[in-house]
Amino acid sequence: MNKISNLQAYLKDNNIDAAFITNPDNVFYFTGFKSNPHERLLGVMIFSEAEPFLICPQMEIPDAENAGWTGKIAGHTDTDNAMEILYRTASETVSSIKTLAIEKSHMIVERYDAVNEFFGSPKITGIDEKTSAMRVIKDAAEMEILREAASLADYAIEVAAKTIKEGITEIEVMTEVELALKKRGVTHMSFDTTVLTGDHAASPHGKTGERKLQKGDLVLFDLGVVHKGYCSDITRTLALGEPGEEQKKVYEIVLEAELAALNAVKPGVTAAELDGISRGVIEEAGYGEYFTHRLGHGLGISVHEFPSLHGSNDMKMEAGMVFTIEPGIYVPGKVGVRIEDDLAVTEDGVEVLTKYPKELQIINN
Amino acid sequence: MNKISNLQAYLKDNNIDAAFITNPDNVFYFTGFKSNPHERLLGVMIFSEAEPFLICPQMEIPDAENAGWTGKIAGHTDTDNAMEILYRTASETVSSIKTLAIEKSHMIVERYDAVNEFFGSPKITGIDEKTSAMRVIKDAAEMEILREAASLADYAIEVAAKTIKEGITEIEVMTEVELALKKRGVTHMSFDTTVLTGDHAASPHGKTGERKLQKGDLVLFDLGVVHKGYCSDITRTLALGEPGEEQKKVYEIVLEAELAALNAVKPGVTAAELDGISRGVIEEAGYGEYFTHRLGHGLGISVHEFPSLHGSNDMKMEAGMVFTIEPGIYVPGKVGVRIEDDLAVTEDGVEVLTKYPKELQIINN
Repeated sequence: MNKISNLQAYLKDNNIDAAFITNPDNVFYFTGFKSNPHERLLGVMIFSEAEPFLICPQMEIPDAENAGWTGKIAGHTDTDNAMEILYRTASETVSSIKTLAIEKSHMIVERYDAVNEFFGSPKITGIDEKTSAMRVIKDAAEMEILREAASLADYAIEVAAKTIKEGITEIEVMTEVELALKKRGVTHMSFDTTVLTGDHAASPHGKTGERKLQKGDLVLFDLGVVHKGYCSDITRTLALGEPGEEQKKVYEIVLEAELAALNAVKPGVTAAELDGISRGVIEEAGYGEYFTHRLGHGLGISVHEFPSLHGSNDMKMEAGMVFTIEPGIYVPGKVGVRIEDDLAVTEDGVEVLTKYPKELQIINN
Repeated sequence: MNKISNLQAYLKDNNIDAAFITNPDNVFYFTGFKSNPHERLLGVMIFSEAEPFLICPQMEIPDAENAGWTGKIAGHTDTDNAMEILYRTASETVSSIKTLAIEKSHMIVERYDAVNEFFGSPKITGIDEKTSAMRVIKDAAEMEILREAASLADYAIEVAAKTIKEGITEIEVMTEVELALKKRGVTHMSFDTTVLTGDHAASPHGKTGERKLQKGDLVLFDLGVVHKGYCSDITRTLALGEPGEEQKKVYEIVLEAELAALNAVKPGVTAAELDGISRGVIEEAGYGEYFTHRLGHGLGISVHEFPSLHGSNDMKMEAGMVFTIEPGIYVPGKVGVRIEDDLAVTEDGVEVLTKYPKELQIINN
């Protein structure tokens, strides 16, 4: 069953007349058309019992067609009231919409008010759980793209390992890595590439800057690519020259914590259990207070999507879910280490998508 | 009067107890702290008669402090209910919030429902017009940053002019331009850099790709940088070798349309009038149907902000407003030309921030 038919069946089962999808990631998921509309209206209206239509800026219609959307398209210009065009096109398609589903985790209050006004205050319900449930399980075609995206992330770390040397700045290393990816056709990173060195790496959300690499530094790389609309996300912490004893110790603890969670992945285990396994290793080693974030997050069209792997999430893992596992220890002013893989739950365990080695690499360029 | 005091005075005048600001651009505007919180809660609660506080992920607190925020900060972790922490911190600050302002153009329905739940369904009003009205007039410090940002955009076009040559691809040109900017300390572009050549440029929202430049091509560059939190946005269309007659003709019409609008900028003229002046030139030349977008958009912390320059906007220009003027003609399959400047309304006219020449540059690298 294709994605739109799946949603239509859900709408019918739940007596919902239509779903208006405006999250650009979900529009891409259902239509194959990826666009960032900024403040302009982009959406796909999916009816329980009629053909869906896309609404987008007039000038993007050729792009939507080139992306493979063969259904109806309603275009709007900057001087149109886009919501009026949405309502008019919907009215041409079905006689009435009594119950309308929207993405409550995406639609802004202003647009919500406009929907209520134009559609005559229909019963409004959230479609977020359904779209999340659909997107959280990747099909074979999505899996193949995610493998390719992960492989490009591995390649980036390979380049990183060749690039680091004494005296080069974090920004220069980042630039070299991104340049190498561009030469392989990567046009977008899935988030700002992070290169953090020495005590700078001890902030889990630090920003790549002008710090120069020194011998004995641990260098933390966190990066990913967007490939055919899907994201990868890898973290590796490399050593430039021989690291100190505490650095080595912290590295080994993080690695053990990462492997422990990774090896526990299989259908039925919960997100909270995985988080607890990794956190347990770090707490036992006495660094619990320095692991300040969740274990990981789902990965797909968005770089952060469901499931969220934290201690309060009792969601059970299922085959086809793809997410990161990324424990870290950050001792302020001293040392920062994180190791992150992308992985997929399989019928009987786990497939690790990112394959760059995880034993501490001591680089002597 | 500083920005927070200005907003507080507005709240008091309008009997609003507090405004909860969550648009990251507005949070930066009021606090100096720029962060992309993804799905996590980031916001600043500004009270009519009490000290404001920031709410952000626990691990970002040091970054907020480093950014210069000296007020109270409420942190939350991934296992907290952030909205509960928001409510608790607000309750510690004031005895009650009967009227709460939110950004209706930013807050999602899900969060709106949570605000209503935790704050006991206060009267909710929009703060969007006020924050837009504040942000639309740039102060002297903002103007200085915008001039610097525009100057970096000029530099990018200089590099572009040196880089284009027969056989190089659009992506390779883009990479060279961005690399040169990185060497000048630019870490973020304000949007995806666009390099479009030949008939490829005839789509106003085309994507930079693998097309190789040929002699006789017009090459359209649309790019901008983020500098100290503010954006620039420039478009230039360069000729690689001698262009054909229709290309030259279209270029001259677009240039005339751009200059006509630019020279009409002064306090009191409306957005619609400016759009009409430029559009009139293009229509008179017989290309009206090929100018398919608005004349321009405001520029500041966001690359698209108020004012929007289109035919239905009767907003009067005021000194301190900064926006783009960017007419274009796109004849499908044939030719695409756009020329875009960033400019500021002054007390008696206009200051053009982007200064790269606009007469057709014929490049023979």
